Amino acid sequence: MSSVLGKNLKVSVFGQSHSAAIGCCIDGLPAGEVIDRAALLEFMRRRAPGRNSYSTARKEDDLPEFLSGVLENEAGELVTCGTPVMIVIHNKDCRPSDYKMFNDVPRPGHADYTAHMKYKDYQDVRGGGHFSGRLTAPLCAAGGICRQLLERRGILVRAHIYSIGDIFDEPFHPVRIGTGGQETAVNGDFPVIDADKGSLMIKAIETCRQAGDSIGGIVECAVTGLPAGLGDPMFEGLENLIAGAVFGIPAVKGIEFGAGFAASRMKGSEHNDPFRMKDGKVATVTNNHGGILGGLSSGMPLLFRVAFKPTPSICQPQESVSYTGRCNTELSVTGRHDPCIVPRAVPVVEAVAAIVILDLLN
Amino acid sequence: MSSVLGKNLKVSVFGQSHSAAIGCCIDGLPAGEVIDRAALLEFMRRRAPGRNSYSTARKEDDLPEFLSGVLENEAGELVTCGTPVMIVIHNKDCRPSDYKMFNDVPRPGHADYTAHMKYKDYQDVRGGGHFSGRLTAPLCAAGGICRQLLERRGILVRAHIYSIGDIFDEPFHPVRIGTGGQETAVNGDFPVIDADKGSLMIKAIETCRQAGDSIGGIVECAVTGLPAGLGDPMFEGLENLIAGAVFGIPAVKGIEFGAGFAASRMKGSEHNDPFRMKDGKVATVTNNHGGILGGLSSGMPLLFRVAFKPTPSICQPQESVSYTGRCNTELSVTGRHDPCIVPRAVPVVEAVAAIVILDLLN
Amino acid sequence: MSSVLGKNLKVSVFGQSHSAAIGCCIDGLPAGEVIDRAALLEFMRRRAPGRNSYSTARKEDDLPEFLSGVLENEAGELVTCGTPVMIVIHNKDCRPSDYKMFNDVPRPGHADYTAHMKYKDYQDVRGGGHFSGRLTAPLCAAGGICRQLLERRGILVRAHIYSIGDIFDEPFHPVRIGTGGQETAVNGDFPVIDADKGSLMIKAIETCRQAGDSIGGIVECAVTGLPAGLGDPMFEGLENLIAGAVFGIPAVKGIEFGAGFAASRMKGSEHNDPFRMKDGKVATVTNNHGGILGGLSSGMPLLFRVAFKPTPSICQPQESVSYTGRCNTELSVTGRHDPCIVPRAVPVVEAVAAIVILDLLN
Amino acid sequence: MSSVLGKNLKVSVFGQSHSAAIGCCIDGLPAGEVIDRAALLEFMRRRAPGRNSYSTARKEDDLPEFLSGVLENEAGELVTCGTPVMIVIHNKDCRPSDYKMFNDVPRPGHADYTAHMKYKDYQDVRGGGHFSGRLTAPLCAAGGICRQLLERRGILVRAHIYSIGDIFDEPFHPVRIGTGGQETAVNGDFPVIDADKGSLMIKAIETCRQAGDSIGGIVECAVTGLPAGLGDPMFEGLENLIAGAVFGIPAVKGIEFGAGFAASRMKGSEHNDPFRMKDGKVATVTNNHGGILGGLSSGMPLLFRVAFKPTPSICQPQESVSYTGRCNTELSVTGRHDPCIVPRAVPVVEAVAAIVILDLLN
Repeated sequence: MSSVLGKNLKVSVFGQSHSAAIGCCIDGLPAGEVIDRAALLEFMRRRAPGRNSYSTARKEDDLPEFLSGVLENEAGELVTCGTPVMIVIHNKDCRPSDYKMFNDVPRPGHADYTAHMKYKDYQDVRGGGHFSGRLTAPLCAAGGICRQLLERRGILVRAHIYSIGDIFDEPFHPVRIGTGGQETAVNGDFPVIDADKGSLMIKAIETCRQAGDSIGGIVECAVTGLPAGLGDPMFEGLENLIAGAVFGIPAVKGIEFGAGFAASRMKGSEHNDPFRMKDGKVATVTNNHGGILGGLSSGMPLLFRVAFKPTPSICQPQESVSYTGRCNTELSVTGRHDPCIVPRAVPVVEAVAAIVILDLLN
Repeated sequence: MSSVLGKNLKVSVFGQSHSAAIGCCIDGLPAGEVIDRAALLEFMRRRAPGRNSYSTARKEDDLPEFLSGVLENEAGELVTCGTPVMIVIHNKDCRPSDYKMFNDVPRPGHADYTAHMKYKDYQDVRGGGHFSGRLTAPLCAAGGICRQLLERRGILVRAHIYSIGDIFDEPFHPVRIGTGGQETAVNGDFPVIDADKGSLMIKAIETCRQAGDSIGGIVECAVTGLPAGLGDPMFEGLENLIAGAVFGIPAVKGIEFGAGFAASRMKGSEHNDPFRMKDGKVATVTNNHGGILGGLSSGMPLLFRVAFKPTPSICQPQESVSYTGRCNTELSVTGRHDPCIVPRAVPVVEAVAAIVILDLLN
Repeated sequence: MSSVLGKNLKVSVFGQSHSAAIGCCIDGLPAGEVIDRAALLEFMRRRAPGRNSYSTARKEDDLPEFLSGVLENEAGELVTCGTPVMIVIHNKDCRPSDYKMFNDVPRPGHADYTAHMKYKDYQDVRGGGHFSGRLTAPLCAAGGICRQLLERRGILVRAHIYSIGDIFDEPFHPVRIGTGGQETAVNGDFPVIDADKGSLMIKAIETCRQAGDSIGGIVECAVTGLPAGLGDPMFEGLENLIAGAVFGIPAVKGIEFGAGFAASRMKGSEHNDPFRMKDGKVATVTNNHGGILGGLSSGMPLLFRVAFKPTPSICQPQESVSYTGRCNTELSVTGRHDPCIVPRAVPVVEAVAAIVILDLLN
Repeated sequence: MSSVLGKNLKVSVFGQSHSAAIGCCIDGLPAGEVIDRAALLEFMRRRAPGRNSYSTARKEDDLPEFLSGVLENEAGELVTCGTPVMIVIHNKDCRPSDYKMFNDVPRPGHADYTAHMKYKDYQDVRGGGHFSGRLTAPLCAAGGICRQLLERRGILVRAHIYSIGDIFDEPFHPVRIGTGGQETAVNGDFPVIDADKGSLMIKAIETCRQAGDSIGGIVECAVTGLPAGLGDPMFEGLENLIAGAVFGIPAVKGIEFGAGFAASRMKGSEHNDPFRMKDGKVATVTNNHGGILGGLSSGMPLLFRVAFKPTPSICQPQESVSYTGRCNTELSVTGRHDPCIVPRAVPVVEAVAAIVILDLLN
């Protein structure tokens, strides 16, 4: 197992859906950085459950508690002191451990079966254990801090809902994103650029919820303000590092940079982005390359899209098996869950991108 | 920079398009494994240039020379001895180093500009230097060996051309692949399942070549025979590791597992793969999850698709800039290059997948 | 900064001497392992302060709280579930953060000055911050668990006080250790083999304490029951990994394996350990190699010694400088501290060795 | 196995004593650095065998061939281009592979037995295979380059023979080393400060050689010019990294920093190094801490000593076992070998220290 992300900046994530707490240990943050608590809580709130009809009803305050690595300055602000920053989020409605809760029937689309094959009867199956989407809360805590530090260096990390099912938001403008338009629109509870499309998406999610079903979607993320030449060739390029990290978010099944899969249907003469001098600097006219060439940043907006599968928890009865019975059976998943994870996944994608970029800059 | 891939099995790749040699150092292969030289050469030949009209005319034998890590047994076979296996491929038409060759005008779509920003005037720009697709030859040498070792353990790694432009091959059957059908069809020079579609693809590539243009495509890869429960949650899951490695192949712009991006348009009730008992073992009826749930293998075929952009080298004139002139200019790329990299990329995708899987099993 | 140890088993240590808590996150423990809480507490108690006149008067219960990674079985025992085990130890007498406590005069022999150069005014200087010996408590928690798991596999990790100043205990017998003699004697509060030498050591420490001074010493550690062939050549050999980890313990200034520095004064004919068949297995008659040849275990007891400098905190006035005054000054260190750290360091050395060995076996 | 050293600068070492070649791949050198070939050869010559009576008679030119990662500038100098630098050293007297050479009787003090347990019958036993001291040639090539780069930044890495058996050279002055005295004396074939002691050492080695025996010794190394605050707490401190790397040199059995093991016999009042202002900067009056406090550099000379065991190859008959006979037997090691490895180990220690320091500065 490895729930540790990064090289010079290392984020260790721990916890299960129903353990006493979840959290993360961030090793390698520079000393002397103020952590804006209000901004961090606001960022984490974007991921928090229970805020509306399209997310799970589970109520968690998700207040991050800092156990180490920070001091308060005279203004009462948290300041990093250079040592590992340990953040704990207590699971409020955590029930006492119950070793007998072993789940005999794996839920389709979840990690129940594969974890059973890896950890045998010992895994914590309650609420998905360590595989739960709840583990994205500490990811957002860590990434939210990194995002603040990047912002101070002029690097913005912004994502929005690119699509829910077949409904697509206006995409980020591959060249102009970061210059004061779209990125300011996508900070709300339901981060879309085109509010009308947002309304359609919410309706589509609501329809799924009422049908006891769920639906997938795509998150688009832009990182602007990066210097050119950041990254490394081959296996530590920007694409490698971002992709390697983004699949740590539950339910992610694909990632593409720039034109991505559409590039596979393009001609070179269409896809190549011409270079031009712009304000005394080299820039590209278009941005099919998504800000990355040869694993290195080009100084253009870094752009990628992440595909999320529909939440596997649905109310409809599903076919499964019984381990003990060694036979087929049926399963109905009850309990609280999101009909669509995508709106809450938007800050998580930002968080992961921010961790990777700050690690590279460290 | 990091051209080192892996954790317990480490592959260090070196070389530039026009350096004296390219190659790789493989650290962590088990001792006592026979390397089937003929099979390795045959595997590498699938990637080699100059075999037909749709690939570059550059002629290289690409014979891997083993400098260490192997001994010959009585049958004259190469056998690993447990120490690092060093493989060198000499660049036959390598010209003496020329420090003055500094390229003032970056080629659109290539790493020329980003590498210039990282390495300044010191990078080796000849033929793309370390960013050249030529570096996939040592990747194939390393991966070809890993693929042999996996095959001995019953694990098959097979890829095919999924699409060229808008022409799509028959996809791998997500459940039945590996049981004796499609995977046997895809070992040739132009690895497709449906030969008719293959002919159309070849024509499309030829059309591009004649227009001085290039075209992209998608490679689909299947790994069959994996035990269930392989991998790790969060950041060392199968998807993380494969994605993190696959972007080390030049021109890759996207990756998706199982239903991938299509999952974003699906309902949970469509996407979830029901579990059923099959021959006394747990299996899924469908395979939208692509053999991976929660980062861990499910025992079903592991399936992913990799999007390749069109070769950036095209004969048509393109807009670019002059560093020294600090002005706009035009550029025509001459020389040998592939109108479509996808056919030769098929074994490279297999190679990278094989390295990652063997590392996990080590 | 990196307070993360290990490769397949990763231990992230966090906390400062006066932060809200200290602790560790253990990623990679196998699932299904019982953690014997009583034995763990007993192990950690060997390191705990305030138990006698030769250790600091600071009172801390050092009770490890498990926030994740474990479940209770029917017998009420803690069982690992395969996910990261997060252990928190709250700092009981922790005072509220005080950003103004910046220490202008670095204590000789401490990390005050070097940390000041690295973290500037932002480091947490209270009690040495992250550099405090207090951080060995979570190391003992993590290592104590690893030590239990090793013991179940027949691998014993045992250390004793080899020397305090010029007083030397009876050394471990390099061949017979682990067969039922000395290792049973060294579990007490003051772990020595020869009790008379122990009394002399305690007297020497007491003399130092009364003089407001401190004294150094050496810890000897043995790992028995290892299979032969464990480890790797060159940079991941047993010596590399143990040495690389042991210097993570504050105050360590040297390490030697087997005959160690004495080997530098020996002839090959004296130092080489003859091989002989013993009970049908290959063994060495002597053990100058300390159980390691070429980085790999030989199956003989693994033996190493670790040199600890005297505690830098002494009551006598010392010469130092003032950063703000940019001038020389004098300093008297007050507060609680150990006149000799060595007795409490014994379980810490065992802990680190256990982590390294379990990582290799994982 | 892992013969890869480093984090941001990675050195992969390959080869066996009798493979076609040995060498290393250096990943992460900055671009634009001139490699002074003459200085590198001179540095490597200090390690080369066959130069005098106290080293092995094996003749190897050990000329490093650069296969990649460098270009020639107009002055004909080698300049790094930022990509992996691959260096090959061909084994001139390499005999064709012989799979039947399996060694039935392990040599005492060598890795024959432990490697046999790890790699079974597959390891390359010829001349010690990958465990041979010959692998220090590529280490010197890599480290020699790093040492040049450090020197350009004002950081000197210098080592000398501290002792051979019971004969001790004058030690480096812990405070003044690097200011123009001793370090200039230690570049010759037999690097000692006190030439008279050097003569005694040579005599002692010659006596051993005539007796068919060997002898150990200690190498002392100083790194001067380091900025204060370099390194990290806990597991990536300077001591951790240097120690973890130095044990990659064959025959090393111990390492100590500053006062080292002697610190274990000191009082705090003796050992603590007082801080004083010196030329407007903070310095210590003495240097028992060896330039490292809390894992971080203090700006004082970094000082460590490395203990080497006597060469295990001796001409006298020794007791061993026969694997096939499962019985005791006798063994006489014939062939070429050094009666004392220490003089040739001096540049190797410098090389390893230089790699570690440059990795930290990268």
